[in-house]
Formats: sequence, structure tokens, C-alpha cells
Amino acid sequence: MKRIGVLTSGGDAPGMNAAVRAVTRKAIYDGMEVYGINYGYAGLVAGDIRRLEIADVGDKIQRGGTFLYSARYPEFATLEGQLKGIEQLKKFGIEGLVVIGGDGSYHGALALTKHGFPAVGVPGTIDNDIPGTDFTIGFDTAINTVLESVDRIRDTATSHVRTFIIEVMGRNAGDIALWAGVAGGADDIIIPEHNFDMSKVAKKIQEGRDRGKKHCLIILAEGVMSGEKFSKELDTYGDFHTRVSVLGHVVRGGSPTARDRVLASKFGWTAVELLQQGKGGLCIGIKDNEIVASDIVKTLEGGKHQPDLSLYRLNNEISF
Amino acid sequence: MKRIGVLTSGGDAPGMNAAVRAVTRKAIYDGMEVYGINYGYAGLVAGDIRRLEIADVGDKIQRGGTFLYSARYPEFATLEGQLKGIEQLKKFGIEGLVVIGGDGSYHGALALTKHGFPAVGVPGTIDNDIPGTDFTIGFDTAINTVLESVDRIRDTATSHVRTFIIEVMGRNAGDIALWAGVAGGADDIIIPEHNFDMSKVAKKIQEGRDRGKKHCLIILAEGVMSGEKFSKELDTYGDFHTRVSVLGHVVRGGSPTARDRVLASKFGWTAVELLQQGKGGLCIGIKDNEIVASDIVKTLEGGKHQPDLSLYRLNNEISF
Amino acid sequence: MKRIGVLTSGGDAPGMNAAVRAVTRKAIYDGMEVYGINYGYAGLVAGDIRRLEIADVGDKIQRGGTFLYSARYPEFATLEGQLKGIEQLKKFGIEGLVVIGGDGSYHGALALTKHGFPAVGVPGTIDNDIPGTDFTIGFDTAINTVLESVDRIRDTATSHVRTFIIEVMGRNAGDIALWAGVAGGADDIIIPEHNFDMSKVAKKIQEGRDRGKKHCLIILAEGVMSGEKFSKELDTYGDFHTRVSVLGHVVRGGSPTARDRVLASKFGWTAVELLQQGKGGLCIGIKDNEIVASDIVKTLEGGKHQPDLSLYRLNNEISF
Amino acid sequence: MKRIGVLTSGGDAPGMNAAVRAVTRKAIYDGMEVYGINYGYAGLVAGDIRRLEIADVGDKIQRGGTFLYSARYPEFATLEGQLKGIEQLKKFGIEGLVVIGGDGSYHGALALTKHGFPAVGVPGTIDNDIPGTDFTIGFDTAINTVLESVDRIRDTATSHVRTFIIEVMGRNAGDIALWAGVAGGADDIIIPEHNFDMSKVAKKIQEGRDRGKKHCLIILAEGVMSGEKFSKELDTYGDFHTRVSVLGHVVRGGSPTARDRVLASKFGWTAVELLQQGKGGLCIGIKDNEIVASDIVKTLEGGKHQPDLSLYRLNNEISF
Repeated sequence: MKRIGVLTSGGDAPGMNAAVRAVTRKAIYDGMEVYGINYGYAGLVAGDIRRLEIADVGDKIQRGGTFLYSARYPEFATLEGQLKGIEQLKKFGIEGLVVIGGDGSYHGALALTKHGFPAVGVPGTIDNDIPGTDFTIGFDTAINTVLESVDRIRDTATSHVRTFIIEVMGRNAGDIALWAGVAGGADDIIIPEHNFDMSKVAKKIQEGRDRGKKHCLIILAEGVMSGEKFSKELDTYGDFHTRVSVLGHVVRGGSPTARDRVLASKFGWTAVELLQQGKGGLCIGIKDNEIVASDIVKTLEGGKHQPDLSLYRLNNEISF
Repeated sequence: MKRIGVLTSGGDAPGMNAAVRAVTRKAIYDGMEVYGINYGYAGLVAGDIRRLEIADVGDKIQRGGTFLYSARYPEFATLEGQLKGIEQLKKFGIEGLVVIGGDGSYHGALALTKHGFPAVGVPGTIDNDIPGTDFTIGFDTAINTVLESVDRIRDTATSHVRTFIIEVMGRNAGDIALWAGVAGGADDIIIPEHNFDMSKVAKKIQEGRDRGKKHCLIILAEGVMSGEKFSKELDTYGDFHTRVSVLGHVVRGGSPTARDRVLASKFGWTAVELLQQGKGGLCIGIKDNEIVASDIVKTLEGGKHQPDLSLYRLNNEISF
Repeated sequence: MKRIGVLTSGGDAPGMNAAVRAVTRKAIYDGMEVYGINYGYAGLVAGDIRRLEIADVGDKIQRGGTFLYSARYPEFATLEGQLKGIEQLKKFGIEGLVVIGGDGSYHGALALTKHGFPAVGVPGTIDNDIPGTDFTIGFDTAINTVLESVDRIRDTATSHVRTFIIEVMGRNAGDIALWAGVAGGADDIIIPEHNFDMSKVAKKIQEGRDRGKKHCLIILAEGVMSGEKFSKELDTYGDFHTRVSVLGHVVRGGSPTARDRVLASKFGWTAVELLQQGKGGLCIGIKDNEIVASDIVKTLEGGKHQPDLSLYRLNNEISF
Repeated sequence: MKRIGVLTSGGDAPGMNAAVRAVTRKAIYDGMEVYGINYGYAGLVAGDIRRLEIADVGDKIQRGGTFLYSARYPEFATLEGQLKGIEQLKKFGIEGLVVIGGDGSYHGALALTKHGFPAVGVPGTIDNDIPGTDFTIGFDTAINTVLESVDRIRDTATSHVRTFIIEVMGRNAGDIALWAGVAGGADDIIIPEHNFDMSKVAKKIQEGRDRGKKHCLIILAEGVMSGEKFSKELDTYGDFHTRVSVLGHVVRGGSPTARDRVLASKFGWTAVELLQQGKGGLCIGIKDNEIVASDIVKTLEGGKHQPDLSLYRLNNEISF
């Protein structure tokens, strides 16, 4: 393989730039040329493609977002879109593609591979909800950003003896809530993957109050319900001086953590190694602290990502 | 004066602990005793009062919130409440009081002074909306916290070519929006103290788009309208891929910045100096970079705080 | 077991407080009493021991350092010291001990177990140099702190077109240098576990210069040689506008990252589980992303910790 | 004036990019063209000059360092260097120059003005040691960066009951030490502008120890003596478990604080206003919270900058 392409797709995640850098540098190190595709699959179809040199990815490892830009592009689910994409790739002489993003990105990579064009997926999303990997690029940064806010809110909660419902990202996945909850010393963590009993939540808060505890923090994944709704339901069990805080887009950007940069670098490096061997239809991941590559079809069919539910029990036994 | 008290009141602000520390240490340095009053005026009336020694304020200068806690207590606006408070102060042998907080705190301090009990107000609130001072304790930290979020949102806005409406605190005051807006490179800043024309906002965004600008950030003080409402109105002028981000309680806590710690230390020190001279009914401030003390009555009657509106013009001429 | 003790020993590491909190809360959750021992083994021998209640570990998860204090105490290597320690433990009715710290702490825990007193070791050190675990408590925070400095230095290096030798902690272990080096985009990483050729280092810098690269960052583990010495040797190969920056004690403290807090919580929880089962002479760790407990003797005899040397090759192929 | 130039000179300081952005945008807003000069006076003489458009300063306000690069260039003190510089300026049709930097930069601006070429100086240096202004661009960021380290060191100092000598930048100026010292709760602050008595330093530490104080932090400006030397002298008065930490280049870079970005924006805007009026030989500053412009000659002759020594007394009376 003499020339590969790289694109980022779906919601931006800190560490995407580090992954693009690793892909670019590793490919150049191995004697290949690299082309960056702007705006994900939309730019692929539109031919918004340019050569990346060593310096183009310099001073990028520490930057949040993605300098290749990203965009939603549902049209790539159609055969027409895919064939246009392959046409563009051929026009630029690109023989293999690295796709960095979430679920949608994987489906695109799979479609390309099925058409005979080797594509490799790299999991990049703050939600950590991609099958085939224990951790995605951006997750570590996101939980630390959430944690900074939780720590700040704790100051206010303590000062005013309040209960805070902190709504965090996670429509289907409780990973952010679980990790930030344990790390933030949350009294309760409410996630889609585990049921909860509002009366028990209220009882726990009351017990803390009775013991003289000043603050109470509840981390709520948005997929369960909104913070406002949760707060109103909780209020029917007593007056806990409840306030709601919604952490939205603010936790998406930012300079990636050390772990996200290292993970992204390993992922990007590995993707190039696989393409060099002519392999496609694979997605990279980290499993049990080891970099792995799995078949995208099997991975997507194998069911959705499961969060580390041991954290749920852990929190119950150490946070009160 | 042999014994003074100190309390924090109203919303917590980073640097309040630094101010309490300065009050405590300065008073002890000068040979006085210091009593900390928990939960603001509520604790004053309830007699929730304890001696503060040197070590009680150790390892506190860097902490957000207020370790003396705070609480709303509208009852202190009544004569009955005020007399109860003075009774408690006398019971503990306290001869002067430092009150750290916002508007409400000043009114309490004024009432006490009118009853013959010397009280000095120290401006502590993130909103910077207290008359008699250019800057309040907590404001510098708050704008830096907002700025961190603005910087993160910029990553996402750029990656997806979006317009973000960032709603920040400020019901009556545009200070946070102005400072964070200029510092964040906001395309527009919308504040209560200045009118705006939505068609011009839209035109500016469109001009940026036409020039190839990827992101657009608009900082909106909550006092003008909600981010949601603003976004909907803006959408009637065109499709700018608008998203809304509301920065609420997360910007209230956190470790104070250097400037807030220094300001709080100077304010606390000065409050003790004034009480020692038997002076009350005063509020501390910083005006033209100098620590000043003004009459609370005149200050409260003198009209509300004005933000630095030169920032508004400045931003128009350098952010586009 | 009805009563356990906990101490921290060796250099402080961010996350130690989170571990003490987890030990305390988990034990109380399981119906046991917990005693905190101040100043590590020194305090154990001196009997500086106190009961820890739920509230004593409240508001501690986010704090750096160790609120149980730490101290060097070589006397605990002697039989006399150990017997005195056991005497104190018995005096307080303590039946099992959790020891959080590095190598020395493990030896103490082992000695106690050999004398029939069950003790469990938890790896807490920023250096990541403890056998029996892939990661220690504090390492993740330390590499992120180093990384912040590396990012800052990059600004200056780029602005002035300079080469910076950044000396980081690691007398025997290159883990901090490797992770911070990969994450910081270092041109070269110099560690005790891998030899290096100064002429090649110089050649790589020159190649970057020739390509127009503005900054050059070299991360050096202190165990190899001092930054000053390295700089002088490098200078014999050419004028690279070299500056040296030594990151010392500043990277030791600070609020722990999400990962360190979660890891510390899991470790602390597990240590109590083991003691409850009457098990001692074990050390906790995380291996291949799973919490494990291994025999301390075998672990200490099993040779020293090995860093992830794949990072070394990775960096060579993506950083230039 | 139709075309102006801008350069940064001397050590880089956070906020320089914000100043260049303000200069560029304000000039374009006013209908002028802007040229950026790389590497300070060196690039001026070499003709390393390029047009700056709106987008060239986009996404720069939040970045540390200077994207125009900086360099030492003593040759500009010679007549020959100055004439060459003016020749280049004329070649590019540049009619006025904004110079952002420290003392040396001012001398260059003065020389140009004397030769009839209007140049305006903007104070940019972390040291805050420029006459004619209360604050320089970069100072606020630097003290907050130092403060983060001080806060971290406090964790370790407390955990191990140690005394830390923290050596900070400031060869001639104690500003960083004073502000970071007061904000960090330093037990003592040692600066060039105030003498000190080592026996009193030792006595104060001992008194803290006797009272049970765990940590002791001493902030030392490098201009007084090295941390190592100070530590050795202190050790002759007793064993205070002293450690030394030197904060060097790490405090120079980093994303600027809100205040530095606002100050830089105001300074840059004002510099363009002055040039438009044909004024040169001036330096911008902030005095008593107001933006001012003063004659460079008088400012440089008027004696060196004085730090706010009231902070010295303040710290003595609140830090113990």
C-alpha cells in the first residue's frame, strides 16, 4: 500500500487529533503517503481531500476537537454515497482508509470494506459506548472534565447544604456517569443499565443529612431522564434543597489527557500496521489493557458495549 | 476592640475562605479574638458561633466555597431578626462584625451599624454586581472558569462548523459575559446593559461564514433572555447550525485564582483595620486599583454597579 | 474481623486519600471499625492512632497528598520496630492492616504478616515502579501534571525555536518519561530501561530543524543522568539552542485524576474484602484491566516492574 | 496610516497572541493593512515579514507563546541594525509599528521613533518589571501557574511535615514572588526589593512547628539567591526538613488567563488607535485600572518598576 486516507466522523472527541497525527506519522515513517479527508464521509464524497505532510500534524497532539472537522452524513448509508466515496478515493489513488469515530463511522468503514476497499475503524467518542473496546478515545478526558465540574459543584453544595442532581452525557451508556460518579464521590449514580428506586435515593440522602453531611451529589446519565424530571420526583419524598446542573457540550472539547493521547497514538499506529498488511473491515480497541483488532461485522453484531458495572456496587459500598 | 466576628452570606464565591482567613489572622496578629459565625445571618440569629484559632483557617486559602457555610435568611430584614442577632453577638462578647457577601449582606451590615453595632461589608460574589468596588471576590475565578468552558466549546464549534450560544450567569449584570466574551473571542456579547439587534447578530455570523470562519461563539448574559429563546430567534434569520450551552452552577465553585486570593486577603485585612478604629457601616472595595472603604448607605443609594462598557466597543472592533 | 487499621507510607501520591476513604467506608459498610494511623510505620510504632468515622473521610476523595501523613521510618526494617508495631495494633484491638505506599510499605506489610498479623499492601506511588500491578495510585495524575508542563514548555520552545531537555522523576523507572513523552509528542524519550545514542538524538533534532520544525522536546528520566549533563553532552554535537527544565516536587501533589480516584477506590475496597476473609501478606494490583491480589513475597521476589516498552518503539515511529 | 506592522520580542508571555490578534483586527476594522514580523527585531532586519489577514489571527487568542516567534537580537541596539530595519519597513510600505515585549523591545521602539518611524510599545513579559504600567501581559497567567505548583507542593509539604523553598522567576523584580506568595499562603516571601533576616525566617518556621503547623512554604525570587543557597543557610538555624523546588520555564507558557487576554486586547487596540493618530515613541500601560500611554523616553528614564510592597506587610500579618 502506497497511499492511505484518514477521516474523523461523528461527534468530536479529545484525542482525535492525536490519532490523526499517529496515523500520518506512522504511515510516513513506513514510506507511505497520507491524505486527510475533511468533514468525515461528507468530505469524502465531496472530494475535500488533501495531502498531509509531517508538519501538518505538528503541534496538534495537545489540541481538542478535530482539525479534519467532522459532520453528520446519513447519505453514506446509501449505496450511491458509498460508491461516490470509493470513486473519490480511487481518484486520489488512496488504497486504504482509517476512520476515527463512533458507531456510524464503523458502519461506513464496513460498507467500504464490503465493496473491496480496506477500511479500519478507530473508536473515538467521549461516550465510551463502542463495542470491541474497553475504552474509546476521548472518554478519559471527558470524565476528568466532568469531574472538575463535580468538584466545583461540591464546593457550592457544601457551602449551602444542598443536594445537586448533575446530569451528564450518556443517552444509552452509563460509563461517564459511573466513572465520574465514583471519582466524584457521588452519593448515587443513576444509569440506563441499572434500575433505581427513588425512595431509596431519598432515604440515603436523609440518612446523610441526619449524620450531619453537608452536600449530596447525584450523577444522572441523561438517558434515564432529565435532571429536572429527576429533581421533581425526588422532591416528592422530602425537601433536600435540590438544584440541577446539566453538563452538556462543555465536556466535549478540551486538551486530551495523557491517557487519551497515548491510547489515540497506539490506535492510530495499529490502524496503519493493519492496512499495510492489506487488512480491512477491522476495528481497533483496547481489551484487558492490550491493543486488539476485531472484525467489524462481528463486533457490531456482537451486542452493545457494557459498562463496568462493578463500579455500581463499589460506589454503593463506599459512598454514603 | 477585643473580639470580632465574621460571617459569609449569599451565594458562595471562590475567595470567601481567603477573606475569612485574612480577617482571622489579621485580628489575631493585632491581639484580638475572632469568632466564626456559620450559615450567615441565619447562624448569627441561631447562635451557631465558634472561636476561630490560627489553625482553623490553615489550608483554607486555596479552597472554593465557604467553610463558614452560607444561607439565605430574609428574616434578617426584620427588626426582630436584627435585634436577636445583636443579642447573640453580645452574648459572645463580640464587638464588631465582618460580613462577606453581596447586596443582601450589605443591608444586614448596615442594619447592625444603625443599631449601634459596627459592621463592615466585604464584597464577595461571582457576579461583580456590587456598587462601591470595581471587582468583587470570586469574579476573577468565575470568568476564568467560564473561559475554560468557552475554550472547550470552541473546539467542538470549530470541528462541526457550528454557532454556539453560551448562556452565562448575570441576571442584572453583564460583567461575566463581557469579560469572558472578550477573553473568549466571542463574535458577539449580549448583556442587559446594552441593546442588541438580532438581524445584525445574524449578519455578522453570515459574514464570518462567507469568509470561511468555522466557529461562531455568542456569549449571552442570562438576564437578557434564555439561550434557548435567543437561539430560536436567531434561527429565524438563517441556519447557523446553532447549539445552546448553559453554564450554571459549575462556574460558582472551584479554587480561587491568584487575583481573587490576593483581593480577598487585602479586603479582609482592611476590614479588621477599620473595625479596630471603631468604624462600621462601611464597605470595602477596590477602585482604580486602590483599596477603599465607603459608607454603605451612600454606596447602596448611589446606584447600581456599572460594568466596563468599553469592553463592548472593544469586542466589536476586534472580534469578527 | 471487627477492627482494621490503615496507614500511608513513603512518598505521597494523589489518590492516597481516595484509597483511605474507600478502606474506611467499605469497612464501616461491612460492620467493622477503622483506625487511621498517622505518619506511616513511625506513627504505628508511636501509637499515633485514632478512630475514623464516615465523616472523617468525607470531602477527601478530591484532595492530593495524604491526610494520614507519611514519613520515612527505616527502623521498621528491624525486628524490634515490627514487634513494637504489633504491640500497638493489639493495644488498639486492630486485627488487620491496610498499607498504602511503595516498595518499603510492602516490606513492612510482609514483616507484619510473617509475625502472624494480616496486612495487605496497596500500591501508591507516582513512579509506577511497584511489581504486581500495571498501574499504581498517583501515576495517572503525575503524568497528566507532567504533561501540562510539557505543553507549556512547548509554547516557549516553539516561540523561540529551542530544544528543551525536560527532566522528569524516575530514578529506576522510565514509566513517567515514557507516558508523558508519548503524550507530549516528545522527539526523544530517554529512560533507564533502554540505551540511547547521543549522536542519533542530535541527528534527529537536526533533521527536524532542517525540515523547519520549530520546537524540540526531549523527556529524560532523572535515573539516566541529570538534564544539565545531558544538555552538555548534546551540545557537543551542535548548537540546538538547548534549555533544561527540571520537573521535581511540583508533579507529586495535586487533585487526583478520575482514573486515580477510581483505581484507589477499587484497591481500597478490595483490600478490605481480603482482610475480611482473614487474608494477609497480599498486595493488590491491576493486571490486564482486572483487580488482582498476589502474594507479597513472590511479587517482591519476582523481579522489578517493567514499563510498557512498546511505547518506546511507538514514539520513534510517530514523533519526528 | 494605511499599513502597520507588529512584532513580538524578548521572552514569550501568555497573551502576546491575544495582543497581536487585537492589533490585527482593530487595524483591519479601521481599514488598514497589517504585516506580521517574525522573530522580533531579527526578523525585521531580515525582512521575515508577511501580510496578516483576519483568519491568520483566528483561534489564537487562547494560545500561549507567540505565533510570530521571538528572538534575542542585540544587533538592533546598533545604528546599522536600526537603519536596516527601517529600510525593510519602508520596502513593505509599513508606516507604523507595534512592538510587544519587555525592556529591550521598548528601546528598539524608541530608536525607530527617533529615526522618524512611529513605533508604540506594548508591555509583554511575565515578570511585570516594565515601568509605565501596573501590570504586563503574561503576569496574571504566570502567577496563576506558579500558584498551581504552590498548591501542589503544599499537599506534599503537609503530608510529610516539610518546609519547601520555592524558587520563582524574578531576577530584579519580586512581583511574581509577592503575588504568588500572598495567594499561596506562603509563610515568608523573599524578594530583591526588601531585605530579610534568616534568623527571623527560622524563628517563624519554628513557631509554626511548635503550634502544630504541618507545612511551611517560602517563596523566593531567584534574584535574591538560589533556592539551594537559601536552604543551606536556613539549615544552619535548625532542621526544618527543608526541600527546594525551582519553578523555571514551566511557568512561561500556557493558555492566558481571562485577565491577560482582556488586558492584551485593550493594549493592542489602543496601540493601533495611537498609530492612527500618527503618534509614536509611546508605551501603553494600565495605571490605576485605566489604559494609559506614556512617552517611552520618560518612562524608561523614570526609574524601574516598583512592586506593590503593601503585599509584603499584608503577608506578614496574615500568614503564620
